[in-house]
Amino acid sequence: MTADTLLEELITFLRIPSISTDPDHSADVRRAAEWVRAAIIKAGLPNAELIEGQGNPLVYAEWTGAPGKPTILLYGHYDVQPPDPLDEWKSPPFEPEVRGDNIYARGAADDKGQVIILIKAVERLMREDGKLPVNIKFLIEGEEEISGDHIDSYVQANPARLQCDAAVICDTEMFAPGMPTLCVGLRGIVYGEIHVQGADHDLHSGVYGGAAPNPMQAVAEIICALKDRDGRILIPGFYGNVTPPSEKEREAWARLPFDVEDYKTKEVGVKDLVGEPGVPLFERLWARPTFEVHGIRGGFTGEGAKTVIPAKAVAKVSTRLVADQDPVAAVEKIKTAVAAACPRGVTAEFKLIHAAAPSLVNPDNLYIEKSAEAMAEIFGQPTVYIRSGGSIPIVGVFDLSLHAPSVMMGFGLPDDNLHAPNEKMHLPNIYRGVDAMCAYFRKLGA
Amino acid sequence: MTADTLLEELITFLRIPSISTDPDHSADVRRAAEWVRAAIIKAGLPNAELIEGQGNPLVYAEWTGAPGKPTILLYGHYDVQPPDPLDEWKSPPFEPEVRGDNIYARGAADDKGQVIILIKAVERLMREDGKLPVNIKFLIEGEEEISGDHIDSYVQANPARLQCDAAVICDTEMFAPGMPTLCVGLRGIVYGEIHVQGADHDLHSGVYGGAAPNPMQAVAEIICALKDRDGRILIPGFYGNVTPPSEKEREAWARLPFDVEDYKTKEVGVKDLVGEPGVPLFERLWARPTFEVHGIRGGFTGEGAKTVIPAKAVAKVSTRLVADQDPVAAVEKIKTAVAAACPRGVTAEFKLIHAAAPSLVNPDNLYIEKSAEAMAEIFGQPTVYIRSGGSIPIVGVFDLSLHAPSVMMGFGLPDDNLHAPNEKMHLPNIYRGVDAMCAYFRKLGA
Repeated sequence: MTADTLLEELITFLRIPSISTDPDHSADVRRAAEWVRAAIIKAGLPNAELIEGQGNPLVYAEWTGAPGKPTILLYGHYDVQPPDPLDEWKSPPFEPEVRGDNIYARGAADDKGQVIILIKAVERLMREDGKLPVNIKFLIEGEEEISGDHIDSYVQANPARLQCDAAVICDTEMFAPGMPTLCVGLRGIVYGEIHVQGADHDLHSGVYGGAAPNPMQAVAEIICALKDRDGRILIPGFYGNVTPPSEKEREAWARLPFDVEDYKTKEVGVKDLVGEPGVPLFERLWARPTFEVHGIRGGFTGEGAKTVIPAKAVAKVSTRLVADQDPVAAVEKIKTAVAAACPRGVTAEFKLIHAAAPSLVNPDNLYIEKSAEAMAEIFGQPTVYIRSGGSIPIVGVFDLSLHAPSVMMGFGLPDDNLHAPNEKMHLPNIYRGVDAMCAYFRKLGA
Repeated sequence: MTADTLLEELITFLRIPSISTDPDHSADVRRAAEWVRAAIIKAGLPNAELIEGQGNPLVYAEWTGAPGKPTILLYGHYDVQPPDPLDEWKSPPFEPEVRGDNIYARGAADDKGQVIILIKAVERLMREDGKLPVNIKFLIEGEEEISGDHIDSYVQANPARLQCDAAVICDTEMFAPGMPTLCVGLRGIVYGEIHVQGADHDLHSGVYGGAAPNPMQAVAEIICALKDRDGRILIPGFYGNVTPPSEKEREAWARLPFDVEDYKTKEVGVKDLVGEPGVPLFERLWARPTFEVHGIRGGFTGEGAKTVIPAKAVAKVSTRLVADQDPVAAVEKIKTAVAAACPRGVTAEFKLIHAAAPSLVNPDNLYIEKSAEAMAEIFGQPTVYIRSGGSIPIVGVFDLSLHAPSVMMGFGLPDDNLHAPNEKMHLPNIYRGVDAMCAYFRKLGA
């Protein structure tokens, strides 16, 4: 394998519009699964198969020819986000284009450009040695972008087949260019809707304003009762199980190279950063729960003026959870708080859409340590440990069902435009990612 | 003219889908204008014409053969609301169907079934007497449902042509079946949008939650800062020019036949009526300002879960104004209050869409008194004086530009389903409306 063949293959992979949110692309999603299966077979694991079930197929393959050596589960996903808004792309999202050191396409970094790192590392080791230094199980899914639960239910139902010592998740990013990074903590999530019902039909605001309850006003009142102006969550008991980061972790975060002014104006694009007063930025992002409103449905939002008191309002909301908050307990607290905050004249109810537990990996374990060593060697500087504010629910599933720690070795960059136009992947990170993954497997098998 | 020919003609009028909000129906809107023009010519005013301008045509006609007698401007509108949701109609909205004493069709009560009262009253008097007891000017518009300003600008520009002693607005309803009603007060309105801008692009709530301001949360905070949980408006100085109703008016309202339980459960369809504590219902509806949120645009409101912190949120809001609140001053107060309530990290601005002054007609004037007498004679019971919580902006224009009081003689009923499926008009109210209008003109000309 040369760099050029990797690039050619990546381009064929990126050309497949495997948009899992769009039913019109279901054939493309399957094509992407077949592409992954074929690539893994080519890498030297002829038993690669598609596991069918409700939803999109899983790609599974295993190589267990290293008895007594660790078994590593390799995770990634072959589905991608929709490319909208299309007119903001400089080159079409499914016609990959190399500009400078980057390749631009939907899925370049999230996650096809990282899935190919896993496959090509295995391919290189098989070609060079005719075998692998560790046992490997590939498990690549096609529903990451729609929070599908095919993989969850399969993992829960097949712990023996998937038994492993650690899982490698290749779907995260480096803290800064050139800086090898291990993500050791993820926030969990509770995502749901606050349904507020007023009258049994829409009402004219002139005729009934002053007598009829307004669910739009009510949902605003409920939202304000759940979080204060400083960003503190007001849901009773919500902070009860929040474990603060260790002093060592806090100090490490404070040493990360970081330009807050750049972050504020260029990355986030705001005039002021906000959040809980007195809590440092990384702690707010990685180690504190949040409450966010994503949108409010109901009533009239078109052009012009329609004088309606809507019968119903629905707020899409989520909270991020941190260790050791329990999603089930959090849902109950939210339900109670929403009911308690409900104004007169309307009914209000929180309805859960999905939830995932936070996860925190103890960095003092062999699989994390060897990963840090391997990446430090390849990138030529020490590996940093960070957390992520986002959620990767499969990490919790691997923990609970397989009792396996997850090693989040990711090679994306902060400016890769995930879920946005002009998504890219830095090509040297793919090549160095393959090198690092090979070095990691060799260390684990030594 | 017999009742049957009126009904036949009304059916042809109602069959025209003159939906002014929908550009696809612009030809139908014009057809409705032509229909009105032809009907007025048939009634005996051959000079009926379409006045063209920006927007839909006005239908104008005059008969000035009664020198020394009062001149009455007759107002109505030929455009209608969209019929959605279509599947809730028992008979198609533009295929009028008589069931019992009612005719069902979009526009039956709002306002084609009332426009025809004006035309048929003139037609009957012309046929019976060969002349009218008063001078008449018809001014029928086609943009009432879209708050178009063709009529406003025409009236403002042509006060001499439209000079009159009073305007009759045939576009309101009776307080209860069989109860002749004059509406002597309307609330004004300020309708606009609160624009809240956070980051310059949408953000991932996992990655940025805890640092980035959320415009959805911010707009909720602003809304809650403008009105409290009891319905009191918190905009500084907002109640300054609110004139309370007279004791006489309050007593009259308290005597109106009214079943509050029926109103609550059947008409409004809520478990509790709300509003300012200690203020009686009709005063809340007719003589107190309100603040309502109609909808909030921005972010993600579809099915499932998208973890976005939206860059922007826009709340559509309005306040109803009562005498003697000034819309221009109200807009300034809202702007100041929105700016003052803006949380850290975002910008917030109120943008006006339209405004109209409240209006209050002194019932001690000849044109109101004679109308009350005429309706009492025809309906066989005393005319009641009410106000309306809604707004009819043209009333303010007639007042300011023509110095003419408006006489709101309307023959709709509270359950006519205006702006909703299964709109209807009670046919006996049309026939008695024609009788009452004829009696009114004769009284004014006596």
